[in-house]
Amino acid sequence: MTEEFSCDDFLGGRVRAFQPRRGYRAGVDPVLLAASIDARPGQSILELGCGVGVASLCLANRVPGVSVTGVEMQPVYAALAMLNAKENNAAFHVVEADLRKLPHELRQRRFDHVMMNPPYFDRTAGTKSKDTGRDVALGGDTPLADWLDIGIRRLGPRAYLSLIQRTERLPEVLAALDGRLGSIVVKPIAGREERAPELFLLRARQEGRAAFQMAPTLVMHEGATHQGDKESYTPLVTRILRSGAELPVTS
Amino acid sequence: MTEEFSCDDFLGGRVRAFQPRRGYRAGVDPVLLAASIDARPGQSILELGCGVGVASLCLANRVPGVSVTGVEMQPVYAALAMLNAKENNAAFHVVEADLRKLPHELRQRRFDHVMMNPPYFDRTAGTKSKDTGRDVALGGDTPLADWLDIGIRRLGPRAYLSLIQRTERLPEVLAALDGRLGSIVVKPIAGREERAPELFLLRARQEGRAAFQMAPTLVMHEGATHQGDKESYTPLVTRILRSGAELPVTS
Repeated sequence: MTEEFSCDDFLGGRVRAFQPRRGYRAGVDPVLLAASIDARPGQSILELGCGVGVASLCLANRVPGVSVTGVEMQPVYAALAMLNAKENNAAFHVVEADLRKLPHELRQRRFDHVMMNPPYFDRTAGTKSKDTGRDVALGGDTPLADWLDIGIRRLGPRAYLSLIQRTERLPEVLAALDGRLGSIVVKPIAGREERAPELFLLRARQEGRAAFQMAPTLVMHEGATHQGDKESYTPLVTRILRSGAELPVTS
Repeated sequence: MTEEFSCDDFLGGRVRAFQPRRGYRAGVDPVLLAASIDARPGQSILELGCGVGVASLCLANRVPGVSVTGVEMQPVYAALAMLNAKENNAAFHVVEADLRKLPHELRQRRFDHVMMNPPYFDRTAGTKSKDTGRDVALGGDTPLADWLDIGIRRLGPRAYLSLIQRTERLPEVLAALDGRLGSIVVKPIAGREERAPELFLLRARQEGRAAFQMAPTLVMHEGATHQGDKESYTPLVTRILRSGAELPVTS
């Protein structure tokens, strides 16, 4: 176990997660995604492609009384997600399934929130990495439009869809949502002030009628350049990553 | 003349433009649009809906040796644009025409740059203003997708299309460009640091192959709140508005 897996702290140790030492490893992005979900106690959340469950576990930790369901196709990640749910004593139920072939029980459910951190790269566009788990997680073979389509179908009335993705795929995401969800908010995420935002959070609402909105950019690091080994997160990002604070999407 | 028209300074007096005292009046937005056009001497530029010509005049002033053509449907604005071209001794040719019915001579030309500052509001969505000129300029009856379509048709090989528009219409703009132009860059424009960007500049390229890119936000004003009567533009914006500096779209 010590060879192949690590156990890592998230939210300043409030969440601990086993994950493979090699291949795709959860970092900051799923934590930001979880922090952006404006869930209330008692609500249901579905995470598509949950990996070892970091986003789901962070959300379950921040909002007591939510029930989170995660879907993960890769057996090792799904097994670790189940283990992590248990270890964290979290209301997090993991289903090992291909998104495109959700079990009947899930296809009958609607959720208050659907969240996802889909692969950032087109599998066809890049070189294949040696590790299959990492390969599927970074550049899966389910098209991004399918992720969104599958997520939209699981939304209850006035429910929210949230995702984190690379900025260069924003047009693709907006095209896939076109006319199906409203009240779309995009919050760009930049490494530093005055840098181009490489990621964005997007939230959209079933039956939402508000106009498209771009929120102020979330800046990750202080200063214009990297300061040696010193951690340089901005105060808000530090609160999100270390203390489990919420990330307001619209402000 | 003194009753109905004012003569206003742009670029610190490098450009002067007559415009109606009532109705749509050119402000900062056409100046930003002009500053964002990366034109070289000798190139040709088409401005759709040029109004009294402020964007075209600013561009002609900043880049010597360009030839700018403006199309304006409203006779009073077109006449003022012609007058302003003369008064500024600018290489700016004005055509009074409806975008949707461009004269044959224009339909046979291709340009190195097409720029536009289309109406920000849907005419059907808002209440009509009392002034017809202002009404057409703020919420014209040509759909935004038509502006883009007409602009795209006038692009030469590897030419650039540029526009400034309200952020809430970004999805509509991206949808209209979809698959037709590439190398799209969106630069959000915010009133102040940490405020939501209400406008954006967009540049796209005929035959462009680069991925979609979001540039750092252009911040207009210093500080978190308005400081009395004091002008509080940021240094870059001051250079653009008062000294005719260029606005780099990607950085």
